[in-house]
Amino acid sequence: MTMYELIQAKRRGEAHTDEALAWLIRGVTDGSIPDYQLSAWLMAVCLRGMNARETATMTACMAASGDQIDLSPLGAHTADKHSTGGVGDKTTLIVAPLAAALGCTVAKMSGRGLGHTGGTIDKLESISGFRTSLSPDEFFAQVERIGVAVVGQTGNLAPADKKLYALRDVTATVDSIPLIASSVMSKKLAAGAQSIVLDVKVGSGAFMKTREEGKALARAMVEIGQNCGRKIRALVTNMDVPLGYAIGNALEVAEAIEILQGRGCPALREICLALAANMYSLSFDVPADEALAKATTVLDSGEALAKFRAWIAAQGGDVACADDPAALGTAKYAKVIETPHTGWLVHMDAERIGRAAMLLGAGRATQDDVIDPLAGIRLAARTGDAVTAGAPLATLYTSDKTKLAEAEAAFLAAVELSNTDPGIAPLIYCTVGN
Amino acid sequence: MTMYELIQAKRRGEAHTDEALAWLIRGVTDGSIPDYQLSAWLMAVCLRGMNARETATMTACMAASGDQIDLSPLGAHTADKHSTGGVGDKTTLIVAPLAAALGCTVAKMSGRGLGHTGGTIDKLESISGFRTSLSPDEFFAQVERIGVAVVGQTGNLAPADKKLYALRDVTATVDSIPLIASSVMSKKLAAGAQSIVLDVKVGSGAFMKTREEGKALARAMVEIGQNCGRKIRALVTNMDVPLGYAIGNALEVAEAIEILQGRGCPALREICLALAANMYSLSFDVPADEALAKATTVLDSGEALAKFRAWIAAQGGDVACADDPAALGTAKYAKVIETPHTGWLVHMDAERIGRAAMLLGAGRATQDDVIDPLAGIRLAARTGDAVTAGAPLATLYTSDKTKLAEAEAAFLAAVELSNTDPGIAPLIYCTVGN
Repeated sequence: MTMYELIQAKRRGEAHTDEALAWLIRGVTDGSIPDYQLSAWLMAVCLRGMNARETATMTACMAASGDQIDLSPLGAHTADKHSTGGVGDKTTLIVAPLAAALGCTVAKMSGRGLGHTGGTIDKLESISGFRTSLSPDEFFAQVERIGVAVVGQTGNLAPADKKLYALRDVTATVDSIPLIASSVMSKKLAAGAQSIVLDVKVGSGAFMKTREEGKALARAMVEIGQNCGRKIRALVTNMDVPLGYAIGNALEVAEAIEILQGRGCPALREICLALAANMYSLSFDVPADEALAKATTVLDSGEALAKFRAWIAAQGGDVACADDPAALGTAKYAKVIETPHTGWLVHMDAERIGRAAMLLGAGRATQDDVIDPLAGIRLAARTGDAVTAGAPLATLYTSDKTKLAEAEAAFLAAVELSNTDPGIAPLIYCTVGN
Repeated sequence: MTMYELIQAKRRGEAHTDEALAWLIRGVTDGSIPDYQLSAWLMAVCLRGMNARETATMTACMAASGDQIDLSPLGAHTADKHSTGGVGDKTTLIVAPLAAALGCTVAKMSGRGLGHTGGTIDKLESISGFRTSLSPDEFFAQVERIGVAVVGQTGNLAPADKKLYALRDVTATVDSIPLIASSVMSKKLAAGAQSIVLDVKVGSGAFMKTREEGKALARAMVEIGQNCGRKIRALVTNMDVPLGYAIGNALEVAEAIEILQGRGCPALREICLALAANMYSLSFDVPADEALAKATTVLDSGEALAKFRAWIAAQGGDVACADDPAALGTAKYAKVIETPHTGWLVHMDAERIGRAAMLLGAGRATQDDVIDPLAGIRLAARTGDAVTAGAPLATLYTSDKTKLAEAEAAFLAAVELSNTDPGIAPLIYCTVGN
């Protein structure tokens, strides 16, 4: 077998055998296949596709290319969630304690962010004292004690994916359904949870721009998970507008606390309830509607907030924020953007709003950038809301005053007002999986 | 402009602007674009194509990426030929002196071979004393004096093509019409001749497997040449069978001399007459049929053989071979392959026969292999011939006795006998250009 033959076969649209894919992923992992051959193959995959069997095999090989975490000592109810990434997505901060309060075992690894805002780990680090790095013993002990722990990725999970992703990122081969599906799922499989709930974002702030693409990606990932013996379900959700009102690390923690307190943005609450309910439904084989009712009760009763407190405390964080989000701190500079004219907010380009937040310091443009935990944007209105001229549309937060003017211009360019009520867009388009 | 954007645009099937292509070829030439990005882009070109304008622009940029030879001091009748490569293709050895005898100015660079047999330069070096490397002054002086010189490629012709070709060769991105056309034509343009005749081979021993592909490649190359102000014509010819009877370096020189002596394989004679006649026709604006008649006269009169003698002598070669090809030497070992049964030779896989010749030492598997100039195969029959059981089918020549058995098996596996007369396949499928 040679890489040349595999490239040529994929160029012709032929399917690879399982042996060929195993050989390829071994070669990616040990570095024996040169980048210039991999990138030609990646482009051929983007343009010719891979079938479900190829995608599942490649994913399993990628998952097996490094460490695989064995969560079986934690029992049968380990549950994980994953979002394909959106702007203002702080769902893990809410869903992890909520699912744990429902009885799921949430032993979760999360990532740092590159782009508009930080990842979950960056967000958690905006809580004073919070430790995102635990030893394996501490991690397991905490999960056994309180049912939830979220740490930064440790060990060498799916190194083949890491290598391929770095190459895809510089060769315009990121947006391919089999490549995205195998990348996400290789890490989820290696992370060990029995039940997996995926949030596939669709819209201006997501990789997938159309519902059809989102559904296809959801189906591809669910098939992989099922092939590998996991319980899995995917929600396809709307990312045409930032999720909730906050974009930025501490701002998003504060908003997550609002939801756990039973307040806050209804759309964000709805998605978090759906994600946690599905984790519970899969883990305990409970019908979806029953699971949702239970999740709502557990959220409204304050049990999820109590679990959040226990979780933050267990990882060394200052729990004062759970009662008073102001304890997270406030950015040095704030600037209110006024609504230019009365009407309805009919469109927000989530990705451009994310970039405005990044300008303020909320995200990283390169791996080495340092995040400003207090920077970001707090919206006063979201798509579909009626707005009044002169009233606040959003507030920008930063410690770098010089960025305010550029960020304001970027923000205003990303929103569209109209005199016509746009109506309310659906939030959850569909569920894939059984 | 970034390479990422160009890859993405080509992935989507968009056409590049002239500025983008100039930028890309500059980046290829100066090495600033990494190989892994180029190979992703090459695969996107293979699968999405390039239009005629893109191909012409890229070719012109590649031709301008290094030295460009100015043949204008040699007058208005400089003429070049190029074959896309086949098995047993010794046409340059015949066409160069024949075209020069017709009055064309043949100041030609040729390549070494990688594959079944050597290139024209390797073949010429099987003539004792022949110098394939001349100083520019010697080269120009010889052409002025006798109208013909053929040397190895010197200088830095189309370095962007060299770089891209090396990458295509290891990423299964060789067989793409715009990429092949631009690669061939960038070197032909840089080599400076006013008139260019192309021989596009089609069949089992060629890159292009079907006539339609061959025609499309011919059209692409002719368009490029016309766009760049050259006189150009392409013949699409049959390479389902080796060209002539000889495959191997000295063996092919000997066969070329047979043709110049007015003897030899009719198919080889026909193609050489057509190529030289087209060079003359383009260079002197003579109608094609008139040019062919004149070429036939010049070949049959011995003028072409006289020009061959003058040419070989001018470059230091032993001209004894022009009267007695045996002066080229004979391989240490020869083995006659007998015809297995009486009937017709209905199929020869030219590429596999080429590989059998390479096994005997006639070609290079890698750049560093040393060619055995006397090794190769002399056919006793070609496709369409009636053959008799026990009569010689071919003779293998080598200085490495151990290779004879493997080469014989490879040869026999490449030929097919039948009891039915297959008829005669056409030799020249069509001519493209005006």
